[in-house]
Amino acid sequence: MIPLEEARARILASLGPTTAETVPLAQGWGRVLASPVLSRVTQPPADVSAMDGYAVRAADATLGATLAVIGEAPAGHPFPGSVGPGQAVRIFTGAFVPPGADAILLQEDATAAPGQVTVNEAVRPARWIRPAGLDFSAGEALLPAGRRLTARDIGLAAASNHPWLQVHRQPRIAILATGDEIALPGDPLPPGGIVSSNAHALAALVRAGGGEPVVLPIAPDDRDAIAEAARAARSCDMLVTTGGASVGDHDLVQAALGPQGFTLDFWQIAMRPGKPLIWGSLLGTPLLGLPGNPVSALVCAVQFLLPALAILGGGKAAPPPTLRARTGTGLAENDKRYDHLRARLEMQGDTLVATAFPAQDSSMLKTLARAEALILRAPHAPPLPAGEWVDIISLDAIGI
Amino acid sequence: MIPLEEARARILASLGPTTAETVPLAQGWGRVLASPVLSRVTQPPADVSAMDGYAVRAADATLGATLAVIGEAPAGHPFPGSVGPGQAVRIFTGAFVPPGADAILLQEDATAAPGQVTVNEAVRPARWIRPAGLDFSAGEALLPAGRRLTARDIGLAAASNHPWLQVHRQPRIAILATGDEIALPGDPLPPGGIVSSNAHALAALVRAGGGEPVVLPIAPDDRDAIAEAARAARSCDMLVTTGGASVGDHDLVQAALGPQGFTLDFWQIAMRPGKPLIWGSLLGTPLLGLPGNPVSALVCAVQFLLPALAILGGGKAAPPPTLRARTGTGLAENDKRYDHLRARLEMQGDTLVATAFPAQDSSMLKTLARAEALILRAPHAPPLPAGEWVDIISLDAIGI
Repeated sequence: MIPLEEARARILASLGPTTAETVPLAQGWGRVLASPVLSRVTQPPADVSAMDGYAVRAADATLGATLAVIGEAPAGHPFPGSVGPGQAVRIFTGAFVPPGADAILLQEDATAAPGQVTVNEAVRPARWIRPAGLDFSAGEALLPAGRRLTARDIGLAAASNHPWLQVHRQPRIAILATGDEIALPGDPLPPGGIVSSNAHALAALVRAGGGEPVVLPIAPDDRDAIAEAARAARSCDMLVTTGGASVGDHDLVQAALGPQGFTLDFWQIAMRPGKPLIWGSLLGTPLLGLPGNPVSALVCAVQFLLPALAILGGGKAAPPPTLRARTGTGLAENDKRYDHLRARLEMQGDTLVATAFPAQDSSMLKTLARAEALILRAPHAPPLPAGEWVDIISLDAIGI
Repeated sequence: MIPLEEARARILASLGPTTAETVPLAQGWGRVLASPVLSRVTQPPADVSAMDGYAVRAADATLGATLAVIGEAPAGHPFPGSVGPGQAVRIFTGAFVPPGADAILLQEDATAAPGQVTVNEAVRPARWIRPAGLDFSAGEALLPAGRRLTARDIGLAAASNHPWLQVHRQPRIAILATGDEIALPGDPLPPGGIVSSNAHALAALVRAGGGEPVVLPIAPDDRDAIAEAARAARSCDMLVTTGGASVGDHDLVQAALGPQGFTLDFWQIAMRPGKPLIWGSLLGTPLLGLPGNPVSALVCAVQFLLPALAILGGGKAAPPPTLRARTGTGLAENDKRYDHLRARLEMQGDTLVATAFPAQDSSMLKTLARAEALILRAPHAPPLPAGEWVDIISLDAIGI
């Protein structure tokens, strides 16, 4: 058995990002930039008014002065002339400030009459003018490569005049559930069988991690069937199997995939749930073999598959993000396996509290579905009384 | 001007969920259940072994006893007979425990020989047996209506034998950017114009909120064009406009949409950024008019559009989720408008710290894109020294 962190480091070190593709801006949300976004424009492109009012010369717009209104500048319709002494131009938010003007008289500080305006509040030079480039300038790096694009980033890429984006291709992840005893939901169930849940839960997790799942047909515990499925995965960026990772099954997967060019990196990790896990390569396609137990499969996917998807998708090598919370119950001393306690989360005043469920049997998928967090317990972690700080993974925060 | 909370309450009170549709389980991730998921099976379906070993009668499996191995029970292949006195059946994880057996002898506690096995560690009745229904039972309510499905929920729905799910239809949100001065990215820019960013940022936000955006062509500041666009929105669950909400524009939108059947509920909210906001109904289609300023539009969308999407999509009426953090800088007393300070977030030890950016001009989209949180400041909030608790919205946590 190898430690969890070492296993993850070996997995991540062996992976690289997918190549780039061009997508329309409108499809860029959630994708990872392969090239930085440099602004193509300056924003605002010129000095613009921040308010509705009058573009004036500050020197003229003294308290009580009356100025001649010589025209109008709505947003998108620049005034064609300039503002001379004693003159003003009616202006609206976002409109270019005409040459000659150096301040904005707010409309609530003015009294309008036909062809003129009276100043009720003296203006200050530059007041209510947003200078050209206040937000960003042409050529400026706005968004770095490797960034997963938010809705706000899409707005920024649009504002900087990019109809297209260069992003990493979404990693294609083949998912293979194996086992004589499993059948798809709604399909006839063999005697002694159970309904297969792993492939579709993992497919959803792959989507949450920015990948594109390819669910392969279930393979029975049979060398030829497993070998055939493995061939189907060659066009993918990774093959994830589930089942076929316990002691006896491990031999079967090795036997089935060895002749297909499979090389094993490691097997078995000091973690709970999830000890049996296979990592290797099938003629260059990375292969992650998860346990058949649904809870173990999903916890292993959180620790290994999501970080792997991040790398494949163009992001950084990192463990799943953790938060600090106080444990709602006392925790026993941990044994040699890194543990993941299914827990609920709540705010108590200003404090985040994670409370482990009393039953942690790894076969209980319902408990995992109801969990909001995993409390992380390192190997040989000492006993902790209720109220102490623990590291947790928020399942909501990682989108699964 | 009305208070932010009142505006949101009025918006949410006027909305209801979309109707249900049937989707394949494989497309259920992220969707909101319209009907609860009741289990169709019991899991495990019978008493099963939790480990690899031997199914035995506990009374016989005393230390040093030798038992006759009468057969094998791999997962999915139940042993056809029963276990009598002095007998054992080789069994694997997940396999049904044969009748007669009441305990599992672990393989690591046994010595196997042809046709027999010797007990090296006495077993306890029921040990290493998962009883039928340990996870869930047929008929049990597993997932409630209104729940947004996680990857784990998809696993649970699969395990309980559901190939289909009843979910709320994704709300279709028409998005209309208005303004003479704006052009789409890459399109020719009019004199005095700027690149339009709101529609595509809002479209990404709608996706993040579980909706389906419909981006309408840009409408110039012209009654007929706005009226025409409004007609196009009738097949949608909501029309969101951007621009056309400031004082002068407000009159234009009213003038354009009044003859189309528009009725105004309210206009102008005591918030910053984002004061000018329109809420009303266009012949039964809810209309949310956001400011044209990109930062204001997105902050208003966080406070009003995301919660509205949640209701439309079948979820609960709620404000955006907040966290508690300590402010990294002193904060001035707030005025009468509810404020949203763009800030970065970081953990300092066990504490989440939110630090407002020095410049908070509402025209700075780059600052919003770089922000990780909005620090919320209620109207007339007193000054706060650095280190005090504040409520924040984590922009990452809400997916935008």
